[in-house]
Amino acid sequence: MILDKVNNPTDLSDLSFGDMAQLADEMRGLIIKKVNTIGGHLGPNLGIVETIIAMHYVFNAPKDKFIFDVSHQCYSHKILTGRKEGFLNPEKYLTYTGYTAPEESEYDLFKVGHTSTSVSLASGVAKARDLKGEKYNVVALIGDGSLSGGEALEGLNNGAVLGSNFIVIVNDNDQSIAENHGGLYDNLRELRENQGEAENNFFKGLGYDYYFVKEGNNVEALVDTFKKVKDIDRPVVVHVCTQKGKGCKVAEENREAFHWILPGALDKKPESFAAEESYNSITNDFILNKVKSDKTLVAINAGTPGVFGWDKAFREKLGKQYTDVGIAEEHACAYGSALAKSGAKPIWAVMSSFVQRTYDQLSQDLCLNSSPITMLVYWGGISSADATHLCTFDIPLIKNIPNMVYLAPVYKEEYLAMLNWAVEQTKYPVAIRVPNLELVSKGEDKTDYSILNKYQVTQQGADVAILGLGNFYPLAEKVANLLKSEFGLNPTLINPRFITGVDEELMESLKSNHKFVITLEDGLLDGGFGEMITRFYGGSDMKVLNYGAAKEFTDRTPIEELYTRYRLKPELIVEDVNSLL
Amino acid sequence: MILDKVNNPTDLSDLSFGDMAQLADEMRGLIIKKVNTIGGHLGPNLGIVETIIAMHYVFNAPKDKFIFDVSHQCYSHKILTGRKEGFLNPEKYLTYTGYTAPEESEYDLFKVGHTSTSVSLASGVAKARDLKGEKYNVVALIGDGSLSGGEALEGLNNGAVLGSNFIVIVNDNDQSIAENHGGLYDNLRELRENQGEAENNFFKGLGYDYYFVKEGNNVEALVDTFKKVKDIDRPVVVHVCTQKGKGCKVAEENREAFHWILPGALDKKPESFAAEESYNSITNDFILNKVKSDKTLVAINAGTPGVFGWDKAFREKLGKQYTDVGIAEEHACAYGSALAKSGAKPIWAVMSSFVQRTYDQLSQDLCLNSSPITMLVYWGGISSADATHLCTFDIPLIKNIPNMVYLAPVYKEEYLAMLNWAVEQTKYPVAIRVPNLELVSKGEDKTDYSILNKYQVTQQGADVAILGLGNFYPLAEKVANLLKSEFGLNPTLINPRFITGVDEELMESLKSNHKFVITLEDGLLDGGFGEMITRFYGGSDMKVLNYGAAKEFTDRTPIEELYTRYRLKPELIVEDVNSLL
Repeated sequence: MILDKVNNPTDLSDLSFGDMAQLADEMRGLIIKKVNTIGGHLGPNLGIVETIIAMHYVFNAPKDKFIFDVSHQCYSHKILTGRKEGFLNPEKYLTYTGYTAPEESEYDLFKVGHTSTSVSLASGVAKARDLKGEKYNVVALIGDGSLSGGEALEGLNNGAVLGSNFIVIVNDNDQSIAENHGGLYDNLRELRENQGEAENNFFKGLGYDYYFVKEGNNVEALVDTFKKVKDIDRPVVVHVCTQKGKGCKVAEENREAFHWILPGALDKKPESFAAEESYNSITNDFILNKVKSDKTLVAINAGTPGVFGWDKAFREKLGKQYTDVGIAEEHACAYGSALAKSGAKPIWAVMSSFVQRTYDQLSQDLCLNSSPITMLVYWGGISSADATHLCTFDIPLIKNIPNMVYLAPVYKEEYLAMLNWAVEQTKYPVAIRVPNLELVSKGEDKTDYSILNKYQVTQQGADVAILGLGNFYPLAEKVANLLKSEFGLNPTLINPRFITGVDEELMESLKSNHKFVITLEDGLLDGGFGEMITRFYGGSDMKVLNYGAAKEFTDRTPIEELYTRYRLKPELIVEDVNSLL
Repeated sequence: MILDKVNNPTDLSDLSFGDMAQLADEMRGLIIKKVNTIGGHLGPNLGIVETIIAMHYVFNAPKDKFIFDVSHQCYSHKILTGRKEGFLNPEKYLTYTGYTAPEESEYDLFKVGHTSTSVSLASGVAKARDLKGEKYNVVALIGDGSLSGGEALEGLNNGAVLGSNFIVIVNDNDQSIAENHGGLYDNLRELRENQGEAENNFFKGLGYDYYFVKEGNNVEALVDTFKKVKDIDRPVVVHVCTQKGKGCKVAEENREAFHWILPGALDKKPESFAAEESYNSITNDFILNKVKSDKTLVAINAGTPGVFGWDKAFREKLGKQYTDVGIAEEHACAYGSALAKSGAKPIWAVMSSFVQRTYDQLSQDLCLNSSPITMLVYWGGISSADATHLCTFDIPLIKNIPNMVYLAPVYKEEYLAMLNWAVEQTKYPVAIRVPNLELVSKGEDKTDYSILNKYQVTQQGADVAILGLGNFYPLAEKVANLLKSEFGLNPTLINPRFITGVDEELMESLKSNHKFVITLEDGLLDGGFGEMITRFYGGSDMKVLNYGAAKEFTDRTPIEELYTRYRLKPELIVEDVNSLL
């Protein structure tokens, strides 16, 4: 193996271009095997191998600084920078994260995982260099899909006037996670199809010098161009055309499905992913059914349709009633707000971790205008995810904005009732936290959700009341059962349903025969649901215990470990209650 | 007056271009008089009068839809759409808001006040129109300064592919609030200087048809071009060059200072604004002093230097150590984070209402990387501001992000000690809520702020402890005094200093001889400081009362009315305590 001879980037200098082509294939083989074993980003990592080899061949990292966008394409960078064991040895597959990680290596500058940040970050690095009077290259690597995000565009605008060395490599594989959307992509296509020539070059229009590399999977072509821009004294874009999923036929042919894969995905037929009924499937059935009779319903998302199971067939069925805005959550929110205000029925699906990418738009464009949008927030909850993709923060983010109605369903019919109400009502921005629960049926839900902040008492008891919000309602049931079996208590059990407000009448009534209220929420405690309840009882004799996540960035921490740490287990909660009884 | 004949837009059709020119001058006279009387946006409203006349002359509002960016330029639109009394009659000056307001008029579509939203909102309006099979023009009006915001750029990218009527009027007065920054502005300059020709037209690069109007303060030229794009079947940009502040000499010559003015500003000499020592002045003195010995300190802001008193003299003194990123808070945050990570010392100043425009960057780019930035948050607190510019939400927004240290100083030396610590330390992202208080001196502060979450006990007492956070520390003092004089109590008084964490040792110690804890914070209660304290005491016998703002969008509500509504007055708080004693 050529890789045997490569332990750090300087070892590349001994290789011929032929060697490097072979090295690229070897690295791709390792990436395919590892990703198919533990899951991860496949397509982005396969297409970029030659670019990263050429970057390390031409530039002098870590003195020269590489800033990766999303950093989901950094695997070959890790292989070349002293971390190849994490790819060669299956026992070490989990040693290194799937993103750049400064704690792992001096070759990694930032912990990143969200899109569109690299150009802004790189411009700060370049500015620090200039202020200190230092000399080195600053190189941002950003994919075409990431260019649609506002932060990337703000960064490009500002990077253009740095007046010093600033190199932006645009990795154009003609694909975001799904397809690209927007006028910018017509410009990229024109450039791709005309050897880097366009009537109005978007990058030149912003003031960048511009280089084009048609053969972005040819190390020699890349090296040739990178040498031209090395040590350049001004901002430059190098537009590199690559093949997403290169070297893995199924990933080349199904660029969306194999962008990120679960373990073993390469061994299965795609059909096997189609699963039984789930919150995703019933949501999508609801939407498909609704559009039959309502031409104003629009399903919106920002570049991640796969998260919601919005596959090509689904998208085609919706036709003009489907909008993927690209990776542009701010626009998605404002666009949806305006649709709602104009009498259409937008359903905007967004992953909890990415709803963070739009706060002001939630507040100003949406809630201040009370636009009756339906937001579906997916994956919200404590998880063993990477620190960059935690879904623990959506409740404090969304819940504390005036006018918003944020709902936490627990079972199938309740979810569908909330969804239907949200879509048909015209008064409120409504967000629904799609449960991370097995789909269970509990019978018809005839609740009138227009009566806000009305909690559901599912078991009337005394002494202790347990509020199990959304995903944690089953935990509340377990706590109630344990309190009964261990202490003979008969707790009151409550499904709050509404995250955004207190059922004051119910909470007031509990005072008469309850001493304790327990709140359980699958997310950050700080600024969350439980604190709101506790504040309500602040001046009373009621004791309130809040359970949820602590304020911290966890990083691939096993979920059971987190549940123990946060005492989110029936026996631990009962232990706490007992100590106060 | 020509205006006597104009009560709604259709009346314009009877006017000659000469009449309309005169009408424009009349309207400018009214705007100047009104703004100089009650304050408001001067420059933006004066420059756009002819454009708005021409829009209403050519298009058929309210059937055709106008969406205003920021909407701080909508005064002449209000005059033409049935609201001229609000400008003619000084007694009605306050009848209409300074922004578009759907509750006032069917000609106004959205309540807006933050920047860069119009193109996204307009694209949603256009999409709804197309889905319903309706026919009308959708027109967004956006200033050159607003184009630097990510939401605007996301919107332009998506608007370009709507495939139907979509008209973006770019009002280019070659000025943001302060000067513009970024590569895009070189492109606009090239277009302005070459009759709309550029080697790479930024808008055409995104896929827009493009029209140029050199004489943007000439109604006839505007009408001529608007007629060409009316009923167009595709996205188009009309680039209009206008004179900011037109018709008011001092505003034409001082475009930044007269963008927004206080009442009477036109009657004063600019010098009279220079005031005595304030939190602004001591901050700026601190920065100017620091840069003398530290070439890596960078003062950053996103397009609003005037808020911080960062005038031209200040900016010139800083030279390369000053960065205005344009209206691009996301970029400001990431850029600052990277500077901090690269060993520079960024101080990023931001107004509370605008920090909302960057949440994901605070979380991912900044806090996840623990970048030692210093953020200065200005104007945070309850106010009588417009609904679009409330500063009540920054505490829940910032406080609940892991790794962040958010400080609330109360007096001069404490603020300066915190500021110096924040700039010199290298471990934490530190935000400081610059007090909305009169500057008072209480003597040297030698606190070691690297010991996090250590509150200051300013008066040791018993029974009742009052935590007066930042701006509300003086209120806490008043409550303590009243409890003493009315009930003979000797309350404990605490300056918490740290918004982001609980002083657990101190809070624990209070349990021994206190029955009540009162928290006072100048901002939203939901997700704020007080709830965190209340949660700490949830399982104990301590009663906790939280005071702050309710979750609502207030709109120009007098601050005294809000203080009463929220019971933020010493006598009301004491009344509450008494009812529980």
